[in-house]
Amino acid sequence: MGRVTDRRAVVRIDTSAGGGNGGIATIVKRMDTLAGEEPLEIRVGRAGEPRQPLAVTMRTPGDDLDLALGFLFTEGVTTSPGDVITAQLCAGSDQPNTYNVVDVTLAPHVERPDTDVARNFYTTSSCGVCGKASIDSVRTRSRHEPRHDTLTVAAATLCELPGKLRAAQRTFELTGGLHAAGLFTPGGDLVCVREDVGRHNAVDKVVGWALREGRIPLAGHILMVSGRASFELVQKAVMAGIPLLAAVSAPSTLAADLAEEAGLTLVGFLRGATMNVYAGAARVAG
Amino acid sequence: MGRVTDRRAVVRIDTSAGGGNGGIATIVKRMDTLAGEEPLEIRVGRAGEPRQPLAVTMRTPGDDLDLALGFLFTEGVTTSPGDVITAQLCAGSDQPNTYNVVDVTLAPHVERPDTDVARNFYTTSSCGVCGKASIDSVRTRSRHEPRHDTLTVAAATLCELPGKLRAAQRTFELTGGLHAAGLFTPGGDLVCVREDVGRHNAVDKVVGWALREGRIPLAGHILMVSGRASFELVQKAVMAGIPLLAAVSAPSTLAADLAEEAGLTLVGFLRGATMNVYAGAARVAG
Repeated sequence: MGRVTDRRAVVRIDTSAGGGNGGIATIVKRMDTLAGEEPLEIRVGRAGEPRQPLAVTMRTPGDDLDLALGFLFTEGVTTSPGDVITAQLCAGSDQPNTYNVVDVTLAPHVERPDTDVARNFYTTSSCGVCGKASIDSVRTRSRHEPRHDTLTVAAATLCELPGKLRAAQRTFELTGGLHAAGLFTPGGDLVCVREDVGRHNAVDKVVGWALREGRIPLAGHILMVSGRASFELVQKAVMAGIPLLAAVSAPSTLAADLAEEAGLTLVGFLRGATMNVYAGAARVAG
Repeated sequence: MGRVTDRRAVVRIDTSAGGGNGGIATIVKRMDTLAGEEPLEIRVGRAGEPRQPLAVTMRTPGDDLDLALGFLFTEGVTTSPGDVITAQLCAGSDQPNTYNVVDVTLAPHVERPDTDVARNFYTTSSCGVCGKASIDSVRTRSRHEPRHDTLTVAAATLCELPGKLRAAQRTFELTGGLHAAGLFTPGGDLVCVREDVGRHNAVDKVVGWALREGRIPLAGHILMVSGRASFELVQKAVMAGIPLLAAVSAPSTLAADLAEEAGLTLVGFLRGATMNVYAGAARVAG
């Protein structure tokens, strides 16, 4: 997977040894390892019908089929593994294969996805464009809302997850530039980890893997993400039936509100020995 | 702007005083301040024609007109301030105003934007879906490529920018959850700062402000962003004619490649007294 990272020439500047006069003390030219980023186009169509481009996401190459499968599922285009007949990295008809297109053939019973981004976003909007409409849209589409999931997890176990996630990131140490999403058991054992320049892609790769493994809904599991907890990440967790989402950094208002309404436990600022629980605190035990 | 942040109940758990036995030492219920996140729908249409939804972005409310203007410009829908006749926060016909829709009326000479996300992404693609096509697409659309910008900036001045950006963030200290984009002069003076849950939105708000102020292209300016430098952020800087983009964290391969090809100086890992320059190092002086 040479496209996961690549080398680039870099000029490293260190001003600290300049005696405080603002002069450049050291300039070193060297090679540096960067996180790969390439577009991935996801095309969908039902068997016997032409495939249409549905989305383009900038992602780190690798696990691209899982990314496409996870994206379609967490966006509500598909609702079960049986909705997809085939998924393949495809070059199109007359072009060299860039390995940046995934063609997904949907089963005949799957509703044709709407490629209009705005219409697709508010399938159930009845109050205009607002946070409440966004929440209602996710709740209507999810078949695996985690409200009644009986997961409980020890706070001390949660505190270990950021370190375990970081330790499992193969690429981060090289580049310093990749987000990660890790799926854990209630005992804190790592089940699956994926890295990507985009947090949403890392989560979709985990969900796509779980779909292929027949593990959806992901009841009783914990999803740990680097960075913040946005609305979009809570959406993906709710769609996959994950009862607890933990993030190293802050959630947004809408992320906390969706978590509360969908019955998902949302943990933020999970650092060292402390955390904030923004919804569903009953699942976090001593 | 009460929607920039909002208060939510939170359970704060600290396991550190538990004597190392993994028990929960303290649980405190309190109110916490979170960064606001709401959808913004951007609708566009030429004068006398109906407006069509072009994009929905999850953003922190505030400076929404600038966000819409900046988005249209950095995506290549508009190329000059005269392309926009009016931009207004609009409720639509029969709904309460959620302040989450911006209606933009384009001048008659502006080409009708393509609402198909995939077609819009590869306006000049001749080699399939790949990083090179993405770069070519940006370079074709930009009228302000910064290749010949004569900016030079002292390395020591760059090293002061992360601290100045953080100091100018009104909301970050409250929430710990907002990205920021700051526009600086070569002497390190702050010109404009915007915060948002999305990095791309923060940059679009800065560019939209500059458009309204008649400051595009932003020749001779420095754009400093929290977090990483993705392809998308380099794209926005190139479209706005900014010659130097500096980021606290890592760039991706495609971000470095676009910067190199478009003649933009890309600085990453700008922390303390050190930085890495991934393209255009000649603009960084001692």
